Amino acid sequence: MNSESIGLGPAISFITLGVTDLAKSRIFYESMGLEAHPRSNSYVVFFDVGGQVFALFPRESLAEDAGSVPGSTETTITMSLAQNVASEADVGRLLQRAVNAGGTLLREPSAPPWGGIRGYFADPDGFAWEVAWNPGVAIGADGRVAIRNET
Amino acid sequence: MNSESIGLGPAISFITLGVTDLAKSRIFYESMGLEAHPRSNSYVVFFDVGGQVFALFPRESLAEDAGSVPGSTETTITMSLAQNVASEADVGRLLQRAVNAGGTLLREPSAPPWGGIRGYFADPDGFAWEVAWNPGVAIGADGRVAIRNET
Repeated sequence: MNSESIGLGPAISFITLGVTDLAKSRIFYESMGLEAHPRSNSYVVFFDVGGQVFALFPRESLAEDAGSVPGSTETTITMSLAQNVASEADVGRLLQRAVNAGGTLLREPSAPPWGGIRGYFADPDGFAWEVAWNPGVAIGADGRVAIRNET
Repeated sequence: MNSESIGLGPAISFITLGVTDLAKSRIFYESMGLEAHPRSNSYVVFFDVGGQVFALFPRESLAEDAGSVPGSTETTITMSLAQNVASEADVGRLLQRAVNAGGTLLREPSAPPWGGIRGYFADPDGFAWEVAWNPGVAIGADGRVAIRNET
């Protein structure tokens, strides 16, 4: 299977905002009518928005996860979009496709503390995309995702 | 109806990236497997990603639309999320709710050149949310949206 066989879509899996005060931002979005997923905790907050996850993550955590250096000028990532894929191998394939298309590799596929495999690329403007294979996230045939409940 | 009756969700309607070169970014995302909606043009590019619109908009256009000053330091908006609502009156209601929750009003409800009514608020970190009533965008019962074809 070559890298062209896996692309973005059919749905964007996660939108993650890097926030300066996680508790405050959680309260703000709850006040706006969103309900935090039970797996939210003091490190990350998830909202299910129609088969997509809207996530709040401390700004430093997001920047580190995306492979950039917190506090540095140009490279700090404050927001990311994510495409979850069905297999570990697809992570590398989709990152390769992004590089072939003119994107920039931010992080090679590797294992985050919460499981699975993820890497990051940047689009031509530096917007960060995470490509993730995560056993804790179910992906439907329509591309919509759901955070699995703790087992 | 008070402002608490309209909230965010059940789905985020648009994710818009403010890009420096619209044609280049369009080619990048098409190379990644996304197909531009027929209503895309030289001013804006739309991709349907599972009942959500992923949009590319020139950075200056997005900043101006969100009510910020292009080229200024802190206030330039480079990305926005949008919640489309079912009525013109709901735009003001949802913006008021955001202000009540501690958000910042960026733009009062007003009419953009492409029709409808929209305003913007910023969340506690300054992330911009557009609240839009747009007759050109259909909203399903599940909150998912579709750009209507030209009539």
